[in-house]
Amino acid sequence: MDKANIKKILQGVKDGSINMDDAVEELKKLPFEDLGFAKIDEHRNIRNGFPEVIYAQGKTVEQVKAITKKLMEKNNNIMATRAGKEVFEGILEITSDAVYYETAKIVVVKKRDIAKSDKTIAVITAGTSDMPVAEEAAVTAEVMGNTVNRIYDVGVAGIHRLLAKMDEIMAANVLIVVAGMEGALASVVAGLVDKPVIAVPTSVGYGASFGGLSALLTMLNSCASGIGVVNIDNGFGAGYLAALINKL
Amino acid sequence: MDKANIKKILQGVKDGSINMDDAVEELKKLPFEDLGFAKIDEHRNIRNGFPEVIYAQGKTVEQVKAITKKLMEKNNNIMATRAGKEVFEGILEITSDAVYYETAKIVVVKKRDIAKSDKTIAVITAGTSDMPVAEEAAVTAEVMGNTVNRIYDVGVAGIHRLLAKMDEIMAANVLIVVAGMEGALASVVAGLVDKPVIAVPTSVGYGASFGGLSALLTMLNSCASGIGVVNIDNGFGAGYLAALINKL
Amino acid sequence: MDKANIKKILQGVKDGSINMDDAVEELKKLPFEDLGFAKIDEHRNIRNGFPEVIYAQGKTVEQVKAITKKLMEKNNNIMATRAGKEVFEGILEITSDAVYYETAKIVVVKKRDIAKSDKTIAVITAGTSDMPVAEEAAVTAEVMGNTVNRIYDVGVAGIHRLLAKMDEIMAANVLIVVAGMEGALASVVAGLVDKPVIAVPTSVGYGASFGGLSALLTMLNSCASGIGVVNIDNGFGAGYLAALINKL
Amino acid sequence: MDKANIKKILQGVKDGSINMDDAVEELKKLPFEDLGFAKIDEHRNIRNGFPEVIYAQGKTVEQVKAITKKLMEKNNNIMATRAGKEVFEGILEITSDAVYYETAKIVVVKKRDIAKSDKTIAVITAGTSDMPVAEEAAVTAEVMGNTVNRIYDVGVAGIHRLLAKMDEIMAANVLIVVAGMEGALASVVAGLVDKPVIAVPTSVGYGASFGGLSALLTMLNSCASGIGVVNIDNGFGAGYLAALINKL
Amino acid sequence: MDKANIKKILQGVKDGSINMDDAVEELKKLPFEDLGFAKIDEHRNIRNGFPEVIYAQGKTVEQVKAITKKLMEKNNNIMATRAGKEVFEGILEITSDAVYYETAKIVVVKKRDIAKSDKTIAVITAGTSDMPVAEEAAVTAEVMGNTVNRIYDVGVAGIHRLLAKMDEIMAANVLIVVAGMEGALASVVAGLVDKPVIAVPTSVGYGASFGGLSALLTMLNSCASGIGVVNIDNGFGAGYLAALINKL
Amino acid sequence: MDKANIKKILQGVKDGSINMDDAVEELKKLPFEDLGFAKIDEHRNIRNGFPEVIYAQGKTVEQVKAITKKLMEKNNNIMATRAGKEVFEGILEITSDAVYYETAKIVVVKKRDIAKSDKTIAVITAGTSDMPVAEEAAVTAEVMGNTVNRIYDVGVAGIHRLLAKMDEIMAANVLIVVAGMEGALASVVAGLVDKPVIAVPTSVGYGASFGGLSALLTMLNSCASGIGVVNIDNGFGAGYLAALINKL
Amino acid sequence: MDKANIKKILQGVKDGSINMDDAVEELKKLPFEDLGFAKIDEHRNIRNGFPEVIYAQGKTVEQVKAITKKLMEKNNNIMATRAGKEVFEGILEITSDAVYYETAKIVVVKKRDIAKSDKTIAVITAGTSDMPVAEEAAVTAEVMGNTVNRIYDVGVAGIHRLLAKMDEIMAANVLIVVAGMEGALASVVAGLVDKPVIAVPTSVGYGASFGGLSALLTMLNSCASGIGVVNIDNGFGAGYLAALINKL
Amino acid sequence: MDKANIKKILQGVKDGSINMDDAVEELKKLPFEDLGFAKIDEHRNIRNGFPEVIYAQGKTVEQVKAITKKLMEKNNNIMATRAGKEVFEGILEITSDAVYYETAKIVVVKKRDIAKSDKTIAVITAGTSDMPVAEEAAVTAEVMGNTVNRIYDVGVAGIHRLLAKMDEIMAANVLIVVAGMEGALASVVAGLVDKPVIAVPTSVGYGASFGGLSALLTMLNSCASGIGVVNIDNGFGAGYLAALINKL
Repeated sequence: MDKANIKKILQGVKDGSINMDDAVEELKKLPFEDLGFAKIDEHRNIRNGFPEVIYAQGKTVEQVKAITKKLMEKNNNIMATRAGKEVFEGILEITSDAVYYETAKIVVVKKRDIAKSDKTIAVITAGTSDMPVAEEAAVTAEVMGNTVNRIYDVGVAGIHRLLAKMDEIMAANVLIVVAGMEGALASVVAGLVDKPVIAVPTSVGYGASFGGLSALLTMLNSCASGIGVVNIDNGFGAGYLAALINKL
Repeated sequence: MDKANIKKILQGVKDGSINMDDAVEELKKLPFEDLGFAKIDEHRNIRNGFPEVIYAQGKTVEQVKAITKKLMEKNNNIMATRAGKEVFEGILEITSDAVYYETAKIVVVKKRDIAKSDKTIAVITAGTSDMPVAEEAAVTAEVMGNTVNRIYDVGVAGIHRLLAKMDEIMAANVLIVVAGMEGALASVVAGLVDKPVIAVPTSVGYGASFGGLSALLTMLNSCASGIGVVNIDNGFGAGYLAALINKL
Repeated sequence: MDKANIKKILQGVKDGSINMDDAVEELKKLPFEDLGFAKIDEHRNIRNGFPEVIYAQGKTVEQVKAITKKLMEKNNNIMATRAGKEVFEGILEITSDAVYYETAKIVVVKKRDIAKSDKTIAVITAGTSDMPVAEEAAVTAEVMGNTVNRIYDVGVAGIHRLLAKMDEIMAANVLIVVAGMEGALASVVAGLVDKPVIAVPTSVGYGASFGGLSALLTMLNSCASGIGVVNIDNGFGAGYLAALINKL
Repeated sequence: MDKANIKKILQGVKDGSINMDDAVEELKKLPFEDLGFAKIDEHRNIRNGFPEVIYAQGKTVEQVKAITKKLMEKNNNIMATRAGKEVFEGILEITSDAVYYETAKIVVVKKRDIAKSDKTIAVITAGTSDMPVAEEAAVTAEVMGNTVNRIYDVGVAGIHRLLAKMDEIMAANVLIVVAGMEGALASVVAGLVDKPVIAVPTSVGYGASFGGLSALLTMLNSCASGIGVVNIDNGFGAGYLAALINKL
Repeated sequence: MDKANIKKILQGVKDGSINMDDAVEELKKLPFEDLGFAKIDEHRNIRNGFPEVIYAQGKTVEQVKAITKKLMEKNNNIMATRAGKEVFEGILEITSDAVYYETAKIVVVKKRDIAKSDKTIAVITAGTSDMPVAEEAAVTAEVMGNTVNRIYDVGVAGIHRLLAKMDEIMAANVLIVVAGMEGALASVVAGLVDKPVIAVPTSVGYGASFGGLSALLTMLNSCASGIGVVNIDNGFGAGYLAALINKL
Repeated sequence: MDKANIKKILQGVKDGSINMDDAVEELKKLPFEDLGFAKIDEHRNIRNGFPEVIYAQGKTVEQVKAITKKLMEKNNNIMATRAGKEVFEGILEITSDAVYYETAKIVVVKKRDIAKSDKTIAVITAGTSDMPVAEEAAVTAEVMGNTVNRIYDVGVAGIHRLLAKMDEIMAANVLIVVAGMEGALASVVAGLVDKPVIAVPTSVGYGASFGGLSALLTMLNSCASGIGVVNIDNGFGAGYLAALINKL
Repeated sequence: MDKANIKKILQGVKDGSINMDDAVEELKKLPFEDLGFAKIDEHRNIRNGFPEVIYAQGKTVEQVKAITKKLMEKNNNIMATRAGKEVFEGILEITSDAVYYETAKIVVVKKRDIAKSDKTIAVITAGTSDMPVAEEAAVTAEVMGNTVNRIYDVGVAGIHRLLAKMDEIMAANVLIVVAGMEGALASVVAGLVDKPVIAVPTSVGYGASFGGLSALLTMLNSCASGIGVVNIDNGFGAGYLAALINKL
Repeated sequence: MDKANIKKILQGVKDGSINMDDAVEELKKLPFEDLGFAKIDEHRNIRNGFPEVIYAQGKTVEQVKAITKKLMEKNNNIMATRAGKEVFEGILEITSDAVYYETAKIVVVKKRDIAKSDKTIAVITAGTSDMPVAEEAAVTAEVMGNTVNRIYDVGVAGIHRLLAKMDEIMAANVLIVVAGMEGALASVVAGLVDKPVIAVPTSVGYGASFGGLSALLTMLNSCASGIGVVNIDNGFGAGYLAALINKL
């Protein structure tokens, strides 16, 4: 309920067209979102240039299609994450604007132009196996209007590969570090820069990596300051958080 | 080794006062920090207005005093975290500029004025027992030049207490959410704002909280986007990361 | 052995038709269930309007059919939980009274009318992916004679969606909260009502959700009072417990 | 903000004493608690006969005294849980109405009479070491107006001790089962009754009990239906939940 | 209720001195233990030569003394486990028959002679630090009437020490293997003999021994057959089980 | 090397047919097994009536066939555990003496008669889903010459079903208790008898059963004495240990 | 950048053909690897006789082929680990020099002769199921120029099998011990020799082996000195480390 | 039993002074250690220059003194690890040769000169808090005859500090890396050198470091090759293993 609506009620009270008790009841039942204190998802996204997001995993193609259709009415950009090829093909049936980022497993339906930020988000990976998660982060950030610099396969076991990228690393405004196995890259990167680092542990590894637990603990226990950690394999979450920060 | 030094060697080569082989050796041994690619902690801190930080836990009072003395030579601000009262008293013996933040367990030696940021960092806690960790975050952020708004004891079990603070919450540029036990507050806050949220699980709780593991997992698995998590009880890390972000 | 049987033995002792030593032996061997101190499953279910329950998982269709057939002799309602479509089709072969609740994966064979309770059980979910577990709970409660109000997809990341349902939530006599990932919904709901809340963690999530462990710990550590937790994904258990409470 | 206040604003709008824009702003800022959708702790407790609760652990005696003083103004009953003897003595200094339940570690300040429920809550323990947790549950339930029947030391390793109490067990309306080590008692009890069972794992045990984890998992995995589990050692939570149920 | 009692009731029915309905009620209320199906602890212990056992940990000296006094009425042997010196001194005050096994932390009150079994129980430890647990097992077994052969400090890191004891090891009828750290000794011993082996993991170790978890898992996963495992540090349980087996 | 061989060497030394240095070398190289201190698997099995055992899991049918063939030369009984139907069919190709126990997944090749013990091993399960593990235990014990009494589906949630079997339970010499989920049955049984109980946790369950961890911890923490635990799902290990004990 | 290049710049400075400021910039931008402080993978491998290594798991056959092709240009030996048969067949298409080690799942492309070390690396396994991991270690060591002695199936449950191999075990310069389940073999071997032992836990086992965790903990907690542990199933890592040591 | 002894027996057989049956018995009972296949601790230590080692933790001062006294008879060097000051003072009472390494908590009784190896073992730590563990490793290695180079406080959060030590790092023959918290240093170091790296996780840290688990997992999952891991805080084990390797 926006101001206009509240005013209308008050006007009705004033001119006697609305009974006062009815007005009280009306005002007391105000849905929360109308009071302005809850974030209005619909408007905020468009205002911020943020896309609508569909988490496709665990949904049928038909379900994703239906949600996409409904969201398309708002004329905003849409992204479906954790989407297999069959999801992309399903969405293609309802709109030709869909683009598929295969490694990232993201479908993007582009309804509006996406501005590019001046400041760069660097997405850095330890190994090539971390790429799917890194791409989920990178594409998410890009669809949210950010310039992304991908710096892949610079894990700490070959520190010279990382150091050779120092210029690019120090030029970034926000950094996303994606690493599985021992996940040590986040500490090294955070030690080199004085910008916020978002660490994404991946489930890459075997044995005592325990599905990403090893990298997760490494990142949480980093002796370097300036690191925020997201869930294992949560590339989307990292890209989203980086976009929030880069927009400040 | 700054430009001047390299130039001096080159000049020596040019005018023949330095043998070429010696020059090669000299240049090959260049300590890394001199080449400019590694962040020069000493200068960066002062340039950024960041304080020198001493992690006092596990150090004797004498050790902390010695480090403080040495750091004081740089004429920069200094903060000692996880510092008991005896540490504060020890530092007082070498400088009267020391101030003690008892709940935060932080000693600050203020050598330079600390500017206050225009944008606010909100520090929000679920319960009163989370206050020591929250204060560690808040004081850290303040010493790093930020305006901090403390919003304490607004846990999700009484959601109206939280909602009553909506204006303050939505006014913040960066938010730090500190919660133990089930740690659910981070999700609720992140769902209300579109600013970066730094979540700090605390070890407050008993039984199946397993020393903060419960809150940590909650925060990592948040269904709300825009959350970065730090280690259990790591108030300093949260304050530092928030300061980095708020400075962008 | 009911009273009648004991009386018959005593009568035999009295009139001499039963030797006293034989009577002693007979009485000492009384199967436990006959003494009345153990709950007589067969009678209790019918008396309470509770159905017979078959846990179909890990049983072959033939096994479930055989058990169903045998239970049908008692002329009581029957429900088979964790039942795939092939189980339903198998049961259909022996009775046309079978109904299949697909999302809940429950087959119900209705032999008696199910009364509807006046008091409502609310089943609340955080996300749409929690629906299968929620439906298992809801259908279980319904088959046990309860009026159920489903309030789905009101997770804490969008607190306004939850608050918009306040009236329905406060009208419930018992509440079942179903949530995966961070599982924070139970705390928020329990903080809003003063009725018993049954919390069901689900295995929805990935990475550090560790198969539902995250939501489970969250719910156990809730800072809100009035919550009882059941096993991960145990919709049936929640529905059953809610029915027991709602019947009081 | 109650009806009266809203009406006053509307009246002001009607008679022109309040500017319409001011009224809109006033109404938009309505604190949440005033809208009636959030549970008003202060009133509810008195209405329900529930006491005010102070979690004393981690608070200084002075803090508990201060809170107690403030709560005493409402003239409601007060209970402080996890309270050592020094807390009791502190409270005694401000009111002679304080009573100390030593095993339960609960201080009760009784300002109003506590009605006794007709229906009984049974509190059952496996061993004598589980008594402190059981007493926390029992006293909590009693202070909340319930009749409690204590059935202690009837663990499953001597099943006859449990069965000898069958009458009392079956007479209860709600049952709280408190057990450490293997925690099997909850399953056995839930199999005997058709009333809700609240299971409280305790940290009693050593070695592979892992601080109560063993009992916790046992209770969550019970093959008996009708069990809700609370946190390890959470006697208060069990007593509170039982009281909520018994009040229905 | 023994046969005599049942007969008396039947006699009453027969001769009319007992009303039949009363008899039915009487018989239905038969306490479980009277029916003979529950093990009568009091008689069994004496018949088997088993002592009464008091688990002293977590009990006050006064409590242990009170229980001891009561048990002494049965004129059976008594043992108190996990008993500190102060417990022993307390018991000494009520009986001069008490003996203290310091390493085992067991007090024994000997009221009857303890027969010695022909067949030997071997108690084997990996290191000297495992001795307290081993002694708890050994003394328990001895008090229960067994001949015990202690073979200590023969861990697998010096396999020759173990093999040098082959004769004694192969002569045992039951073997208890006590080991912390990696706990490998149980496998090696079970591979050498064809007698039952009871494995007791101890909490001896540090770091990744995780309080005995390492040894526990080792013993459970043994590739040798014929091993039963008890809880970490549960020397009493091992001694008791060995005594049960040795008695067969 | 048996006595005869050693004597032969000594005789050679005595009569000079063997050079002394050669004799020394010969004696120093004595393979361990020849010295009698290592258990001679080949002979022991036949002497004890124990079968040869092949752990078929992870082996190809061809590998199992090859091992079977070789073992058949010793003319001893053979059992292959964790054997699928295809393994049985493979073995059938080389001997018609093979019998398949489908639920137990055991193939037995019977070359010698198996004596039946006088004393009975009871195999008790909590639920029907525990049957495969129970059958592995039961068949193993039978093939090792024991009389087995199967008492299935008597879990603690229906204690009367268990108590109704009291006579059979108390008649057993050794008891194997097989249970998943909360695994409480072992404690109850051990509390009823004074014979050794071997507890087998199973991976039956879901959610917080964590693949059998719940039942495992329950059994290790049992408050009843006289229980030895084997690995999760290790029916063979339980049957083997029970056979060792029953043979004493 | 090698000495020659640095000299060239200095020469240019000396003879004036290079401007001094340009020289400073050039020297400051020296890529890290050129300064000699980072290990030059390309040269080191050939110098040491080490092969290029491709971790094939998670890579498509096409990707492995492409990497192989590129690496073949250096004319060094190549090994692809965790390579299925289809990987081997793919590589065969580009070079006939490929050899497949099926159990080890390693493809070797031999471009240079591999010298054999004088000192032996012993690879010892507890069971036959540990062979794939052991072969990965053995083949890795061989391809890196080492003489390997395989001693398989000598687990601690039959200690005589191990002791019968004493001569071979004591002759090794480095020992790799591969064991799953309880993993006790490493301790026994390390207790017998005074050479470095590399312990490889394997995921062989079930139930409480928790995917190799049991063996891992055992090896880390060994009471024998001289053991270094690698990740679960990490045969390659063990072979590589052993080769590094054997080369000293 | 050495050759001489065997020969004596054979001689006795030959000349008839020993009865043949007695000789057979004598030979069959040969203690294992006499056959030469078990490592003769006493001689090996002296031959290798290895000290006798006493693990003082959990031993009384009197016990350590007694063991020291007995070991001193062999005239070999002795070291007591995990020894508090009171242990040192106790040993001083029996020998003035004792030296105390306070940070390492090691007492050394030097009876023989310790040769210094040509090749260096580098002991590297991430932080200053890791020093006690590092010193345990360093002193152990030194007492075992090695030249040790300590490189402390070069953690990955300030990679330039590490790289500044490149020369020393690359000059080492074996490297011990000691790190707590995230433990990433081992990967970085192993990536820089081609020498064996022994990684020692420490329990330094808090929260999600879980007593060293985080660093342990990091080191086990290292993407760098050539790392062997020892138990958390096991400086002695690392020093011992490094000494074994350096001696090759």
